[in-house]
Amino acid sequence: MSLQIIPVHISKEIVPGDDLIELLLETRTGKGLKEGDILVFTQKIISKQEGRKIDMSKIKPTLLAAGIGSAYAKDPRIVQLILDETKRIIRMKNGIIISETNHGLVCANAGIDESNIEAGYATLLPKNADASAQKLRRRIKSKTGKTVAVIISDTFGRPFREGQTDIAIGVSGISSIIDYAGKRDNFNRILRVTAIAIVDELCSASELVRGKTLRTPIAIIRNYKFDKKNGSLKDLLRAKSLDLFR
Amino acid sequence: MSLQIIPVHISKEIVPGDDLIELLLETRTGKGLKEGDILVFTQKIISKQEGRKIDMSKIKPTLLAAGIGSAYAKDPRIVQLILDETKRIIRMKNGIIISETNHGLVCANAGIDESNIEAGYATLLPKNADASAQKLRRRIKSKTGKTVAVIISDTFGRPFREGQTDIAIGVSGISSIIDYAGKRDNFNRILRVTAIAIVDELCSASELVRGKTLRTPIAIIRNYKFDKKNGSLKDLLRAKSLDLFR
Repeated sequence: MSLQIIPVHISKEIVPGDDLIELLLETRTGKGLKEGDILVFTQKIISKQEGRKIDMSKIKPTLLAAGIGSAYAKDPRIVQLILDETKRIIRMKNGIIISETNHGLVCANAGIDESNIEAGYATLLPKNADASAQKLRRRIKSKTGKTVAVIISDTFGRPFREGQTDIAIGVSGISSIIDYAGKRDNFNRILRVTAIAIVDELCSASELVRGKTLRTPIAIIRNYKFDKKNGSLKDLLRAKSLDLFR
Repeated sequence: MSLQIIPVHISKEIVPGDDLIELLLETRTGKGLKEGDILVFTQKIISKQEGRKIDMSKIKPTLLAAGIGSAYAKDPRIVQLILDETKRIIRMKNGIIISETNHGLVCANAGIDESNIEAGYATLLPKNADASAQKLRRRIKSKTGKTVAVIISDTFGRPFREGQTDIAIGVSGISSIIDYAGKRDNFNRILRVTAIAIVDELCSASELVRGKTLRTPIAIIRNYKFDKKNGSLKDLLRAKSLDLFR
C-alpha cells in the first residue's frame, strides 16, 4: 500500500491561545482525518501558539553578547537570545554559532528564527515539544475519538552536507526509532543498520509538501504502520559521551 | 494534491548484468510508472548490479589495516576495504571509523556493508552513483518514453543524533537542492532557511516504505513537482573549508 503525504493549509496567522486542532478540523483535509494518521506540525506554528515570540526591542544584550555580535556581525540581541537558549557552544566560526540548546538539540542559532514573523520579533523553539505534541494528540482524541501520532518538525542543517532537512524536535504516540538490533537480513546475517530514526524521516517527508513560503504548517501522513509506544525527543539525542563530533 | 510513496517489490537476488529497469517494468507498480515520477533505488541493489561485491577471502590486509583491526576488534580485511575506499579518516573512536570516501561522502566504514549479501562477501558503494542514476533514467526513457528522476539512496548515521536516515548518494534528472536565498516569507522578510536538500528528504521518505529486511529496493514518489535541472552528489557535499566539523 502506498504512503500518502497530505498538506494542510491554514491561512490564519497563529496567535497564542489559538486552538490548532479546531483550525485543523475546519479544513477539508482535517475533516478527513483517519485513525492511525501521523500529523506533523512545524515548529513555527507551535512556537507562535505557545507565545514563544520575542519582542526584540525588549532584549538587553550582555557585554558577552555584544562582543560576539560585534565579532560576527550579528545583532547582539539575537546573540543574547541564543545564549539564553543554550547549554553549551559547540562551534563558533564563519558567523555561525552551533550550540547545544537547553533541550539537548545541536543546531545553528539555538533554533531562533526571524523569518515568517513580523519585523522586530523572533521565535524561540517550544519549551518542551514532546509535551506540545502530546497535548495536540490528546486534543485530537477528545475532539474526534481518533488515535493518531503527532510529531513537531524543524529545519536543521547537518555537518558534512549542504542543504537543510526537517527533523523531529517533539514526538507523541509513535516510537521515534525502529530498532533492528539483532535482526537478520534476507541472508540470515545480522544487519549493519541497527536503528532508523523514522520520526526524522517522517519530518523530512512532510517538508516536501510544505515548502517554506506557503501557509502549510501541518502535514498528514497516511498508511504508515508504526509502533504506538510513546517516543520522545530524548530517543533521538546522542549522548555527548558517545558522540564523535563534540 | 497529496504526495504518494509507492514501494516496488523485487524478489530476484540481483547479480551483475541484471537489467534493473526490465525487472522494475515487470512489476505491477512498474507498469504504472508515470511521467514526472521520482524513482529512488537503494545503494545495495545498484552495487550488486554493478558488481561492487567483494570476495573477502581475496583481500590481503596491509600492516596498517591489521593494526587498526586489532586495536578496534574489527576484521582487518574490512579495515583494508575501508582504507581503499577512503580519502581521509575523519574520526576513529569507539570501534567506529568515520571517513571521507573517495566520492567525498563522510560516513562510517566508507559505506562498506556486509548485510543483505551472502557470507564472505561485502558490498562497496557504487563508483559513481550519479552516473548509475543517469543510466537508469535513460533506460527508463528509452523503454517507456517517460521522463522521470532517479535518486540512489543509502542509510547513514549523523553527528549529534541517534538513529540513521536515508540520504542521496547519486542524483539524475532533478535539482538536488531548492534554493530559497533572497526569497521572502509571508511577512516579506528574507527567509532564514536558504536551501533544502530535497533529494535527501525524498530518500528519507522512500525509506519509510522500504524497511531493511524486505525485498523492496525501489520506491516511486508521485505528485512531487520538481526542478528538472540535473543535480549531482556534488551539490550535497559541503566543502571541507566551509565545514565546522572537519
